[in-house]
Amino acid sequence: MSVFTPVSQDQLSAWLKHYSVGTLHSVTGIEEGAENSNFLVTTSHGCFVLTLFERLGRNELPFFLHLMAHLDRHGIPCPAPVANRDNEILGTLNGKPALLATFLPGASQMAPELEHCAAVGDMLANLHLAGQSFNRKQDNPRGPRWWRETAPKVMPFLDEAGQTLLRDEIRYQLVLHAEQHEDLPKGVIHADLFRDNVLFDGSRITGIVDFYFAGQDCWLFDVAVTVNAWCSTDTGALDEAKTRALLRAYHSVRPFSQVEHGAWPVMLRAAALRFWLSRLLDSHVPRYGELVRVRDPGQYQAILSQRVALGSAAPWVG
Amino acid sequence: MSVFTPVSQDQLSAWLKHYSVGTLHSVTGIEEGAENSNFLVTTSHGCFVLTLFERLGRNELPFFLHLMAHLDRHGIPCPAPVANRDNEILGTLNGKPALLATFLPGASQMAPELEHCAAVGDMLANLHLAGQSFNRKQDNPRGPRWWRETAPKVMPFLDEAGQTLLRDEIRYQLVLHAEQHEDLPKGVIHADLFRDNVLFDGSRITGIVDFYFAGQDCWLFDVAVTVNAWCSTDTGALDEAKTRALLRAYHSVRPFSQVEHGAWPVMLRAAALRFWLSRLLDSHVPRYGELVRVRDPGQYQAILSQRVALGSAAPWVG
Repeated sequence: MSVFTPVSQDQLSAWLKHYSVGTLHSVTGIEEGAENSNFLVTTSHGCFVLTLFERLGRNELPFFLHLMAHLDRHGIPCPAPVANRDNEILGTLNGKPALLATFLPGASQMAPELEHCAAVGDMLANLHLAGQSFNRKQDNPRGPRWWRETAPKVMPFLDEAGQTLLRDEIRYQLVLHAEQHEDLPKGVIHADLFRDNVLFDGSRITGIVDFYFAGQDCWLFDVAVTVNAWCSTDTGALDEAKTRALLRAYHSVRPFSQVEHGAWPVMLRAAALRFWLSRLLDSHVPRYGELVRVRDPGQYQAILSQRVALGSAAPWVG
Repeated sequence: MSVFTPVSQDQLSAWLKHYSVGTLHSVTGIEEGAENSNFLVTTSHGCFVLTLFERLGRNELPFFLHLMAHLDRHGIPCPAPVANRDNEILGTLNGKPALLATFLPGASQMAPELEHCAAVGDMLANLHLAGQSFNRKQDNPRGPRWWRETAPKVMPFLDEAGQTLLRDEIRYQLVLHAEQHEDLPKGVIHADLFRDNVLFDGSRITGIVDFYFAGQDCWLFDVAVTVNAWCSTDTGALDEAKTRALLRAYHSVRPFSQVEHGAWPVMLRAAALRFWLSRLLDSHVPRYGELVRVRDPGQYQAILSQRVALGSAAPWVG
């Protein structure tokens, strides 16, 4: 359930008078993301999505909202913030920061085939290139510094094998390969392009959603997050055909540089580490008052183990 | 036929590499407006419209393109310019200024019913209010000054009744009612909201197109242009039910002020005069080298005569 703050038809009707989107027909709470209250809003002019932000504060939101507006302006299908009559894209409803955005049709593909993986690779490369002209900068909030801070908090909850894996991986990333991370080409990254954050009509992508972990980091890290999410088998191993399909499509828009080819095995591990850590944190260190959808950390422990087992081979990168 | 500058698949494929819209599937010349070359472009990411500008110069275009982007950002369904990787919305293709914009589904309704007129009134008022925060200003190029300049050019081609009507109307507007024009609330207006410039899905508007006559002028003038275009019978008289439907919907979003109520009969005449003049000019004073779709001036002479016959009554304005 992802409606924490209810909105009545009367409240919304009054609020929409500040916008140019017509008169309200219906408002329905919808499941989208786990951290905000979301509503499908239909008006005389069409369909929109209303989001009341429950976690992020008013000062944190402009980066994400302007990023979505920028990418939409470049033809990347993502929710486009709708401005009100004061030309503001961030409003207030029921005391919460509130966004009205365009509705994107389509459905998530939770069992992707090769064509879906290729479409995701193509779109991710386009997103990276379109983001180059975005002029606001903000670090990826789940980068190396956050791994370093988070590892000790979750260490006590792991068994011995888990502790060894985590300790070794933190050293591998932050001591042995810290420089490599610095040398890679950077830009704005989605950083959370999981299967439920992409909408399809058949094999064509109609929407990329949930930009609330986006920030400045290595493009290759984003590719690795995406490959781990879309191309892993149930055991956490990489599916060769899907990985090749995603990477080939990405390359055809933005080919990897030489330094990226070299860093690919490291980044696949880094991306696995980042989600193993956040899932461990969500499972074992609850933040009171926050609503979190807990996902199995074991899946990402398996993915990390499988990536470590690859050694320095650069699987199917070319 | 509205493709004056052809574009090949290979040319467009190369040009689209500057954009983030995926790989080209197809390009098809389409009929839209009479002054530009337009193409429906499908890519791996979706549908777009490519426009090569044949009349307007590169320096004249930013006002219109930024207006469309502004209105789109406010939820008004209009073609949204797509930016390229240099973050520019105006490119060059085959030596012409070129725009890639979002494709809007829907079809024109050339035989509108009451519900279509109501939807147009509602959308026009929303467009006027959304335009208030647009910060570029440019005069309506077909305003009172242009009427004054144009009347003598077309006068010789009219019969005696036509000459009298035109002479009297110019005096009525520019001598007797010039002040009224100044006193009315102003803003950015579409100025050409004819039936072929609105797209519908059923009775819902899915697109407002052709902003290339837009500029700063009285909102009431825009309402009068629109009522003349949507609510006139074959004889040029106002259809009462359609006029009421359009005005009621407009009012419910932006009620007329007292001064607008008083000026309504004058503006209905002014709006008829403007299109009578441009159609006379297109018919009788060809501009060599320009392609112009000539429309019957007689239709707007009839509309003007009918509005004059109304006298100072303000038909169905409340």
